[in-house]
Amino acid sequence: MNIEATLKNYDLSKLKVVTIASHSSLQILRGAKRLGLGTVAVAKPGSGWFYRRFTFIDKVIEVDLGSMEQLAGDLVKDNSILIPHGSYVEYVGWRRALNMPIPTFGNRYIIEWEADQRKKMKLLEYAGIPIPKSFNDPTQVDRPVIVKLSGAKGGRGYFIAKDANELVSKLSSINVGDDYIIQEYVIGVPAYYHYFGSKVYGRVELFGMDLRYESNVDGRSFNLAEPTFVVVGNIPVVLRESLLPIVQKYGEGFSRAVAELVPPGMIGPYSLESIIRDDLSIIVFEFSGRIVAGTNVYMGIGSPYSVLYFDKPMDMGERIAHEIVNSVKRGKLIDILT
Amino acid sequence: MNIEATLKNYDLSKLKVVTIASHSSLQILRGAKRLGLGTVAVAKPGSGWFYRRFTFIDKVIEVDLGSMEQLAGDLVKDNSILIPHGSYVEYVGWRRALNMPIPTFGNRYIIEWEADQRKKMKLLEYAGIPIPKSFNDPTQVDRPVIVKLSGAKGGRGYFIAKDANELVSKLSSINVGDDYIIQEYVIGVPAYYHYFGSKVYGRVELFGMDLRYESNVDGRSFNLAEPTFVVVGNIPVVLRESLLPIVQKYGEGFSRAVAELVPPGMIGPYSLESIIRDDLSIIVFEFSGRIVAGTNVYMGIGSPYSVLYFDKPMDMGERIAHEIVNSVKRGKLIDILT
Amino acid sequence: MNIEATLKNYDLSKLKVVTIASHSSLQILRGAKRLGLGTVAVAKPGSGWFYRRFTFIDKVIEVDLGSMEQLAGDLVKDNSILIPHGSYVEYVGWRRALNMPIPTFGNRYIIEWEADQRKKMKLLEYAGIPIPKSFNDPTQVDRPVIVKLSGAKGGRGYFIAKDANELVSKLSSINVGDDYIIQEYVIGVPAYYHYFGSKVYGRVELFGMDLRYESNVDGRSFNLAEPTFVVVGNIPVVLRESLLPIVQKYGEGFSRAVAELVPPGMIGPYSLESIIRDDLSIIVFEFSGRIVAGTNVYMGIGSPYSVLYFDKPMDMGERIAHEIVNSVKRGKLIDILT
Repeated sequence: MNIEATLKNYDLSKLKVVTIASHSSLQILRGAKRLGLGTVAVAKPGSGWFYRRFTFIDKVIEVDLGSMEQLAGDLVKDNSILIPHGSYVEYVGWRRALNMPIPTFGNRYIIEWEADQRKKMKLLEYAGIPIPKSFNDPTQVDRPVIVKLSGAKGGRGYFIAKDANELVSKLSSINVGDDYIIQEYVIGVPAYYHYFGSKVYGRVELFGMDLRYESNVDGRSFNLAEPTFVVVGNIPVVLRESLLPIVQKYGEGFSRAVAELVPPGMIGPYSLESIIRDDLSIIVFEFSGRIVAGTNVYMGIGSPYSVLYFDKPMDMGERIAHEIVNSVKRGKLIDILT
Repeated sequence: MNIEATLKNYDLSKLKVVTIASHSSLQILRGAKRLGLGTVAVAKPGSGWFYRRFTFIDKVIEVDLGSMEQLAGDLVKDNSILIPHGSYVEYVGWRRALNMPIPTFGNRYIIEWEADQRKKMKLLEYAGIPIPKSFNDPTQVDRPVIVKLSGAKGGRGYFIAKDANELVSKLSSINVGDDYIIQEYVIGVPAYYHYFGSKVYGRVELFGMDLRYESNVDGRSFNLAEPTFVVVGNIPVVLRESLLPIVQKYGEGFSRAVAELVPPGMIGPYSLESIIRDDLSIIVFEFSGRIVAGTNVYMGIGSPYSVLYFDKPMDMGERIAHEIVNSVKRGKLIDILT
Repeated sequence: MNIEATLKNYDLSKLKVVTIASHSSLQILRGAKRLGLGTVAVAKPGSGWFYRRFTFIDKVIEVDLGSMEQLAGDLVKDNSILIPHGSYVEYVGWRRALNMPIPTFGNRYIIEWEADQRKKMKLLEYAGIPIPKSFNDPTQVDRPVIVKLSGAKGGRGYFIAKDANELVSKLSSINVGDDYIIQEYVIGVPAYYHYFGSKVYGRVELFGMDLRYESNVDGRSFNLAEPTFVVVGNIPVVLRESLLPIVQKYGEGFSRAVAELVPPGMIGPYSLESIIRDDLSIIVFEFSGRIVAGTNVYMGIGSPYSVLYFDKPMDMGERIAHEIVNSVKRGKLIDILT
C-alpha cells in the first residue's frame, strides 16, 4: 500500500492503535491508551467478551480473521495503525500480512524471512551472530540435535535426538513430506532478549529479557512423559552484566543486517532467542521481527533495562506508544510504518 | 456474630486492619497503612520482634493464638477488621475461624469447604472447572497419581506413584487410619492464579499469577533424595495471553458457584491452582478462598495484571485496602464482611 | 589511606560515584545519578562503547585495570567514592582492593575474609548461622558433597560427588596442588538474600532476594552433559513470610559478627547465600560483603522487600545513593567509607 498517500488523510490528533486481541495485545493497547492514543482490539469470535472487560480498550471488534482485509478500509478511515505480533502473523499468514492494507508499525517485510527457517538462519549469520550448526544429512549428525518441523508453533512439534541413530529412528515416524530442519542441540540455558529499534532516538535499546515457561519440560514430570516444549508463559530474568555488551552487540548487528537485506530496516520491538553455554558464549537459534510475548512479564511495571534509557520503568506497549507519539511530534510518523 | 450490630458501634474513620503476623501480613498491613487505615499484627510468641521492625505496623500484639478469641473484644472496640490468610486458618483451625467474633474480610464460610478435599473438588466441579480424576480404589489406578494425606500442609506429606503397583506399595507404609485422596498426577507445568472478587466494582479481577518454589523438588538434587514438595517461596510468571480468557472464565465460574453454594459468595482475594498441560488445557487441583502467599511476589511493586483494572500497578494488600476504603465510602462496608 | 584527611579536601556538593563497569554498575550509577551524584564508570578496554550508550553515566574511563591505582589521584581530586562489587574484587584482587587509595563505600576489610573459604565459614559460624558440614579427609565423607576449587569463579570449578568413592575418584583428576574445600552437599532449594546495613538508620534491612540462573544446570540438558554451575543471570523470588524472621536474624547476626571481628562492621549491601531444606531449615554456604549481582533483578523497579522500609520501591543502587546522600546531610559521610 501507499503509506504516504494514506497518511495524508489521517487526522494525527485522533490516531488509533489496533491489534489482534491475543499475544501481547493487552500491553499494547494499555500502553497506547496511557499515551493518549485510541485503542481497538480485533478479537476472534468467542474471545471478545474477555477484552470488553477492560476500559482502556475503546472498541472490541469481534470478527473472523479470515476477513481482516474487509475491516481495513474502516480502520484506515479511523486513523488506525496496526501493531503486528506473533499471533497476528499466525492467524492471517505471512502472505496476507505482507499485503494487509493498513499502515503497520515496524518493518512488515521481515515476516517473509521469519517464515523460512533457512532464510532466518541466513539473516542471523549475516549479522555476525553465532547460530547452532545445521545438518542436512541425518546420518552425518555427530552430536545431540533438535528437529524443528516446519510450521511448528510455540514449541509444539520439536524433538531432540542424542545422536544420529536416535535421530534416524525418530525421523522415520514423522509424516513423509514434512519439512524440517536439524540443528545442533546447544547445551546451556535459554534466554530471550527484547530490543527496540528506535527511529526517534536513532538507537537499539536492550529493553528486557525473559525465560519461557514451557509445558511439560518445565514441570515436574519425573520421566512419566516425553519432554514437550509448548510455551505457556514467561518468567522475568536479568543477565550477568558482563554479558550485556555482547547481547547489545548482537542486537545492533541484527539491526544493521536487516537494514541491508530487508529495507527499511528494523523498526520497533524485536527479539533474539538464545542459549547461553557454560563458557558464557551465546548461541542464537531464533529471532522475532516484532514484539514477543515475553515482554508481557513487564506489563505495567516496566523492565529493569528500560530505566537505562528512560526516567521511569516502561513496558514494551508503552515503548511502542512512546515511539508513535514522538514520531508524530517530529513529523516523521511515516518512518516507523510500512 | 451479628456483623450489622457490631458495625453500628464502629468509628469508620478509625478503621483498623488486623491480621496474623505471617503468610502475607506484611503486604496486607503495608497496603492498609498506605490507604490510611490503622494496622495491627497479632504475632505468635517469639516473632513479634521482627514485625516491630516496621513502622507501617501501628501495633504488634504478641500472644498465643490459642487465645485469639480473648483478643476479639478489644479488637472490635478498636474498630478492627480481620484479614484472614492461610496461616490464620492453619493456626486457629477452621472451626474456630468460623466463629471468631471479629468482623472478617471476605467470606469466612468457604473455609469449611476448603478443609475437606472432597467438598473442595465438588465445588470446583460445580463451577465447571476441569479437575484431576480421583480414585477411591488404589488397585483401579491406571495412570500416575499423587496422594495427598489429609492435613498435609504446604506440600508436605504428598507423594507420587507411577502406577497401581507403586501406589499400593507406598500406601502400605503410611499410618493406618490416615485419611488421604488419590488424584491423577497431571503432567504439565504448575500455575497459580490470583483473583479478586470485587463488590465495589461488581467484577472478578484476574489480578496476578505465580509459581511456587518448592523444596527439594525445585532444587538440584541429582536424584540424591526423594522429591519433596514443601513450599518455601514464590516466583512471578505471566501467562500466554491466549490462555487468559479461559483463566478468567474459570475465575468467574468459581465465583458464581460460591455465590450459589456458599452465600454470600466470593469476596476479595482467592486463588485457583492449576497444571497447564502441553495441549494448553488447564486442570485445577486446588483453590484457596482467601489471599495466597503467591501474591507476595508483587508486594509494593504491583502485578502486571493489576494495571488492566487500575491506573497504576497494585499489590493484593493495596487491593484489599482499596476495597475496604471504597466500601466505606459507598456505605457498603457490610457487604465485604462476614 | 587516611580517609578523614582525604575527605577534608572533598567538595561534598560535587560527590561522584565511581565503579568498575561490570557486575552491577548500571544499577549503581543510575541510582547515583537519580539522587544527584556524579557518575564515573571505569571500563576494561573494549567495553567502554557499551557504557557510553547511557546518558546517566557522566564519564566512561577506558583503562587496563592493572593500572587502576594510577587513576586514584584524579578520582580523589574529583571527589569520588568507589563502590566495590564482585567484579572489582575479581579484577584487581583482594590485596590491591585493600590498599586502593580511594575512599571506598562499605567495609573493605571484609574482602580478606571472603578470599579464604575457611575464614569465610568461620565468620558465618561465629555469627550463629548454620553452615554445611566440612570434610578435611575425603575418605571420611559419609554423604553427598560439593567440592569447590579455590579461586573458582561464578560456579565454574565446582563438582558434586555422591559418596566417598566417587569423591576420591573425581579428586584424582584435578591438578596436584590445587586447593579445594569439601562441603556437605545440602539438598534443598537455593535462595540468596540481599541485606543493607544502614548507618543512617541504624538497622539491617532485608532488602531483596533472588535465585541464580546457572548454565547448564538450569537448562534442559537431558543428561546430555555433566552439570555445570556457571552463573549467567538472576531470577526474582520471594520467601514464605514465616521464614523471614530467621532470614532477618541471620542477617543481623552476620552484621554483629562482622562488627566484632572485622571493624568497622558491616556497611551497605551484603548477601547470604543459602539452601532451604524441606524441613524449612536454612543452611548458608557463602556470603558476599558487598552488592551482589542478584540485586540487578530489581533495577529501576525496586524489590518487594524495599517497601517495608521506604515509601516507594527502591533498587540497591538507589539504596546506596540514598545512604551516601543522607550520610552527607548528617555530616557522617566518613561513617560509611573505609
